This record gives sequence, structure tokens and C-alpha cells, in this order.
Amino acid sequence: MKLTTPIPLLEIALLVNAEIIGDASFKVRGVNEIHKVEEGDLTFVDVRKYFKKALNSKASVILINEKVEAPSGKILLYCKDPFAAYNLFVSRVRDVEPLSKNISESAVVHPSAIIEPNVVLGHHVRIGAGSYIRANVVIQDNTIIGENVIIHSGTVVGTDAFYYKRIGETYDKMLTCGRVLIEDNVEIGACCTIDKGVSGDTIIGEGSKLDNQVHIGHGVVIGKNCLIAAQVGIAGKTILEDGVKLWGQVGVAARLTIGEGAEVYAQSGVNRSLKAGKAYFGAPAVEAKEWFSDYRVWKRLGREGR
Amino acid sequence: MKLTTPIPLLEIALLVNAEIIGDASFKVRGVNEIHKVEEGDLTFVDVRKYFKKALNSKASVILINEKVEAPSGKILLYCKDPFAAYNLFVSRVRDVEPLSKNISESAVVHPSAIIEPNVVLGHHVRIGAGSYIRANVVIQDNTIIGENVIIHSGTVVGTDAFYYKRIGETYDKMLTCGRVLIEDNVEIGACCTIDKGVSGDTIIGEGSKLDNQVHIGHGVVIGKNCLIAAQVGIAGKTILEDGVKLWGQVGVAARLTIGEGAEVYAQSGVNRSLKAGKAYFGAPAVEAKEWFSDYRVWKRLGREGR
Amino acid sequence: MKLTTPIPLLEIALLVNAEIIGDASFKVRGVNEIHKVEEGDLTFVDVRKYFKKALNSKASVILINEKVEAPSGKILLYCKDPFAAYNLFVSRVRDVEPLSKNISESAVVHPSAIIEPNVVLGHHVRIGAGSYIRANVVIQDNTIIGENVIIHSGTVVGTDAFYYKRIGETYDKMLTCGRVLIEDNVEIGACCTIDKGVSGDTIIGEGSKLDNQVHIGHGVVIGKNCLIAAQVGIAGKTILEDGVKLWGQVGVAARLTIGEGAEVYAQSGVNRSLKAGKAYFGAPAVEAKEWFSDYRVWKRLGREGR
Repeated sequence: MKLTTPIPLLEIALLVNAEIIGDASFKVRGVNEIHKVEEGDLTFVDVRKYFKKALNSKASVILINEKVEAPSGKILLYCKDPFAAYNLFVSRVRDVEPLSKNISESAVVHPSAIIEPNVVLGHHVRIGAGSYIRANVVIQDNTIIGENVIIHSGTVVGTDAFYYKRIGETYDKMLTCGRVLIEDNVEIGACCTIDKGVSGDTIIGEGSKLDNQVHIGHGVVIGKNCLIAAQVGIAGKTILEDGVKLWGQVGVAARLTIGEGAEVYAQSGVNRSLKAGKAYFGAPAVEAKEWFSDYRVWKRLGREGR
Repeated sequence: MKLTTPIPLLEIALLVNAEIIGDASFKVRGVNEIHKVEEGDLTFVDVRKYFKKALNSKASVILINEKVEAPSGKILLYCKDPFAAYNLFVSRVRDVEPLSKNISESAVVHPSAIIEPNVVLGHHVRIGAGSYIRANVVIQDNTIIGENVIIHSGTVVGTDAFYYKRIGETYDKMLTCGRVLIEDNVEIGACCTIDKGVSGDTIIGEGSKLDNQVHIGHGVVIGKNCLIAAQVGIAGKTILEDGVKLWGQVGVAARLTIGEGAEVYAQSGVNRSLKAGKAYFGAPAVEAKEWFSDYRVWKRLGREGR
Repeated sequence: MKLTTPIPLLEIALLVNAEIIGDASFKVRGVNEIHKVEEGDLTFVDVRKYFKKALNSKASVILINEKVEAPSGKILLYCKDPFAAYNLFVSRVRDVEPLSKNISESAVVHPSAIIEPNVVLGHHVRIGAGSYIRANVVIQDNTIIGENVIIHSGTVVGTDAFYYKRIGETYDKMLTCGRVLIEDNVEIGACCTIDKGVSGDTIIGEGSKLDNQVHIGHGVVIGKNCLIAAQVGIAGKTILEDGVKLWGQVGVAARLTIGEGAEVYAQSGVNRSLKAGKAYFGAPAVEAKEWFSDYRVWKRLGREGR
């Protein structure tokens, strides 16, 4: 997320009880995950094997639990628990207030959009021209919806990421400050759930169509004109390029890329990135022609082995 | 769907900019898909390989993009884009208005039925004696619910079909004008989604029971006394005969028939029609005894091949 | 369930038209399923193969359809249809009234808890300090929610069990009188469904986290600090010990025990109890290392058999 007003590093250091190693006059302009940070952003790292990635990212400020040598210009915020410090900072900068009425006063709805009964619009939600939000939909904070979007009843957009850090036997929640962006001409079925990005954006690309009971994890990016059938689940940060088709009950693991125009048959379980333009099947999913070839052999062996 | 008032063909031809080939004085009495049309109905066809099926169907009027020879008495409505023309006609005849309040004035609820808070009832919804619609259920337009039906919270009945026509890289939505019919003594769990038929009806047969998070596609016909466990998905136009049992997370592909009393074990993926009275398992689903026989062989081969 | 006031056996016998064999002056203090009954409870049995289990349970009173010899002190309530008698008794003692407004007057919400718009709280619901119930959540009767619990939008807690008795071709519903207990620091995603216990309790243990679209069947007991990813389904009465992890779209059959710290990879289908501390995969789920070993062999056979 980008901050509406840059925040002086000194203020952050005091808030999270961290030591500044670098330019103390710097002002932080945003917060994001390592692989998405831009110049001016703050990020965090607390596992040594990711230190290098964080230090070489575009982040200007890094919350870190070791006084390592940093590239010139990079500012470290040294503290004991960067995760907790990050959460504290996010809780300070994100504007998340519980809703006290159905439609937040800060929600902006185009006059030509249609909002049916029992719809809930969170803070800073924006809904574009000609969009149609059906009864009992919940759109949570900071969701941006384009033009001519249809969202069917019971769907929840902008849920928190399912993202926890293990602390001994228990789990600490990573606070979510990202958004959901739904581009023009998207249609989303009933009882779908679409999580916010942790600090970046979940994006449903222009013209894509989702059937009922689809789950989209945090930070997933769906390209243009994708078709996603009922009961599909896509885990966090996975990317679907344009024109991808996922048939019913497919599951896709986190942090993968599904190439342009790839098609995945029903109930497949995708655990690695898939190439563009090909058809896949199975759990774990392989090229469909490979799966059917294997299956013919397996069935023959099954008959012979009786 | 049947039209409440028959519409003169001339009026339709003007609306959709089509040329009448046949009796111009005819009045259209309904609209439906090729395999369900009745005399008096209008249907459409825009792919040559389905021309014959359409021309030999019971439809009286066919929107078509070629001036073919038609059986005597059949009326053609020739136009460049029958799909767009069909959508235009449907948008004219179906009575779909966004809801401006929870319970449409045209909804008819039997005095003995119970409607809990935050329920939404669309236009022309009818609910029979003794039925119980729990909090936060959405019943959309033209859904007919029988007697002693229970629908649990969060469920959405009467969603649009997930049905698009590819136009280059993008998708055009096929407008839905069918209904959902829920017969007597049906129970539907929480957070289920049941789509309308595209132009025919989705039917949940008498005494059938659905668990939570079940998805029923457009035009599916479920027989009497079926049991459908949680998180099952059934794609468009599939037929379940009486007494079918589908266990948890089963997926059934479109346009199949599951024979009377057949049972499909959990997580199976059904991609072809199944015979009556047998048990099935696997993805793709085969007879359960065949699956277990194969599996024993595969496991043995797995051990031997280490 | 425990009765708020013990009920004289004579009153029950008259209500359900049963004959008392034993101490007619006894007062029933609760009702529960065979494997959970305590002293003072009433239970029922109508299948001969479970007679022994019922007679040797801790139940004080047994609705039964045969005049069998009972252990000393055990009271039989003899009647033709114990299932119907049980249902009649439950319908008399459970306090289930349809809701006439969003928040039942008998719901007790701690002043520090946050209840967003369109939330429905049933009778006798209790919500502890610091808990946060997001928009459009439905919490049904007799659900007890601890402290610092978060429940995301669209979720339904306290649905009826999916539990029917076959009567010829049709199904009779077993009435549900159990509860849902959600312990402290639990987080539940959007559009989840959590069923009540039939007569005991469904329990979500302290610190456990559920992602979106999870289904929890009747009487399931989830231990502390479990992680349950999106679209998982757990069937009735299964037990998850502490620290279990179920990844996306996993299905778990009824009446199993998943040992402490066990981990089940995505889309697996669990049809038998699993040992503590191990990783599992596949449908049916086996130890993950066994599955991957088998799979390597199967893939090699597939290549060789082409």
C-alpha cells in the first residue's frame, strides 16, 4: 500500500521501538512485501535466508533483526521482532475501522451502479459506472471495482489474507493492508471469497468471469478474460495470465504462474507453474495428454494384475 | 420460459432486426434451449453443426444465421448474430428488475411459511406452506418453492447461469430467463448456490436433501429423495434420477445422467453418465469395485517398483 | 445437551407414548448420542447391533424398540419407533424459535465485542470480550464464542446436522439440539459453515485458524492451534487433535481421529484415522512419502507402457 502522507522514519522507529541504521530524515512512502516493494517502501525480514533478497529489493527501509551490512542508501530498522514491528506499523497506517452501518460514508458509488438490499460497502470502496452488486454481497475496505462489473449474492470481497506466523505453538496474524482491484466487465458468481493482498493488491483482470463458490487467495493476480468455474480455489500470490481457463473444483497452490491461455481440467491440483497454451489434468496436474496416456497404462495394469 | 402474453413475430423481427422466413402472423409463446423447446417456442442456433438439431426440434421459430431449407411449418428468423438477437429478445421478455427492497412486492409467501431476518425474496418468488427460510438467504426472481422446504442461512437460489459465448478474446454473457423449482420436503444447507436454468428450469426433486456449500449448475434436474453431501458441485443440465447419493466434494460434469439409486463416493469426479443402482469412485469415476481392484494392483506395483 | 430443568420420566413416557421399564420416578437431566452420554442422560437405539453399546453406555434412560434385559439401574423406555420418539422429545426440550429480528434478545454480547451490520445472532448466543463478528455473519442458537475470536463475513455458525434416517424411499430428519463452541483466539474465514452437534457440541479449539469456505460437520472437535486452509470439508464427529494442518480442499470422512500435529496436503481425501506428527497425501490419503514413492513408480510404468 501507498501511504496517503509519507511518515518520517523517526516516528516509525519510536512507534516500533527500533534503531535506525542509515538516513534518519527519510520519510516512508509505502509498505509492501519483498517481491513487490518499490522505492520509498518499508518491508520486513526476520529469517536469515531471506536477508539477501530483502537487502537487494527496491525497499528503502527494512525492518530486520540483525545488524547486517546493507547496500549503500538502504536504511535498516533494527529491532528484535520485525514481524511484530511490521504489524504494529501496519495497524497504525491502514485505515480499518469496524463498520457501523451497511454503506460506509467513505464509499463512492457511481450513480449508474446498482446496489441491491443488504449489501455492505466498507470504507473507501469505489464502484464504477454500470456495475451491479446483488443482494447480501459484502465488499470490504479499499476494494476498487471498475465499470460494468456484476457481483452475485453472498460473495465477500476483500477478506483478510490467511497468513500467520508461528510463535511456538500458536499463530500470530499478519495484518492485511492490501486491496482488491476488480477491473471492468468482470462477473463474479455467488458465495465467492476474494482476499485482499497482504500489502499489495489482489487483481481480477478485465473481462474475467468467476462462477459460484470460487476462492481467490491474497495477492492473486488474474489476467484478462479468464474463465474460472465453480468451487475453484487459488492460493495466495499465484498469477493467472490472460485467457486462462480453470474448470470446476480445481485447486492451485501458492506463488505459481499459469501461462497465457492454459486450460486446467476439473478437480486438478496444480502444484507447479504451467506453460502457456496447454491443457493440464490430474493431481498433481501434468499435461492432459500425458495424464491420459499414463491412465491408459495404469488401467491396463489394473486389469492384468487382478 | 413461457411468455405471459404471446408476442407477434413481427414485433420480434423488428426488435432484433431479423428477416422472417415463414408465417409472419405467428405469435411466439415461449423461449427455450434446443433440447427442451416445445411447440410455439423460439430458440436460436448459430453453429452449422447444430442446424439440423434445431430445425428438427419442436421449436416453431428459429433464430439462425443462414437461410437454410426448413421443414414445413418451421419459421426462420434470419439475422447475422442469433446469439445477440436471442439475448436482446430475452432481455425484452424476462421480468428482471434490480431489487430495491428485501422482499419484492410480487413475492408470494404462504402465511404458514417462516421468513427470518435479512432474507431477500426476488420478483415473482413463491414460497409454499410450512417452508422455513433462514436468515440471510437470497431467493432470486421466479423461484418456486414448495411446501415444508427448509433453506439454511447464506444460501443463494436462482443465480444466473455461468454461460458465455466467446467473441474473439472476450466473453458475451448468455442471459438467463429460466427458473428454479424446489419441490416439497427439500432441505438445502447453508451457503449453497443454485443457478437458474438458462431458459428452462433447475429442479430439486421432492424430499431431496443438500448439505452445506453445494453448487448446482443451471438447468440441473435432481430427482426425488437424493442425498447430496457438503461441497458437491454439479455442472449445468446434468440429471440425477431418484435416490442418487453423492458424497462430499464430488464433482459432476455437465449434461450427464446419473441413474436411479446410484451412489458416488467422496471426492469422485464424474465425467460420463452413470448406471442406476451402482457405486462409483475415483476421478474419473468408475465402478467402485473396479477402482478398488485397480488400486490394489497399483499399490502392489508401487511397493514392488521401489 | 443438558436440560435447564430435569424432566420427570413419566412426562416423557406420556409425550412419546412409551412404556417405562425401570424406576418411573427418575428425572432426565440431559440428552445425548451413545458415545457421549453421561449419567442422567436419555439416548435412543433402534438397531439391534447397537443395543449392547447403548445398554452399556452411561445413559440412564434408553429409548428402545425391544424389551431387552438391561443392566441394573438402567431404565428402558420401550416404544415402536425410538427415532421418532427421540425427535419428539428433542423438539420439546430444545429452545428453537425462528428469529424475528437480527439479534435475539437472549443473545449476550460482551461490550468490547464488535458486531458489524447485518449480523444475525440467534437465541442464547454468547460472544466474549474482544471478539469481532463481521458483516453478514449468521450465528445460530446456542453458539458460545470465546474471547478475541474473529469471524469473517458470510459465515454461518450453528447450522443443523446433515443427518437423516431412511424411512422407505424418503428421509426423516434427526433433530439437532447440540451447540457450537468456539474457543478464544480462533479466526474463521468468510463463507464457512459450521454445523451444531446433533446433541453434543461442535468445538473449534483455542487459537485454531480456518480459511474461507471451510465446512465443519456436526460434532467435529478441532483441537488447539490447528490450521485449516480454504475449501476443506470435515464430516461429522471427526476429531482433530492439537496442531493439525489441513491444506486446501482436503476432505476428511466422518468419525476419524487425526493425530496431534499431523499434516495433510492439499486435495487429499482422508478415509481413516491418521497418526500424530506425520504428513499425508492422496485420495485415499496415505503417508506422503509413501504416496510420492508410489507415484514415481506409476509415472515410470506410464512412460514404459506407452
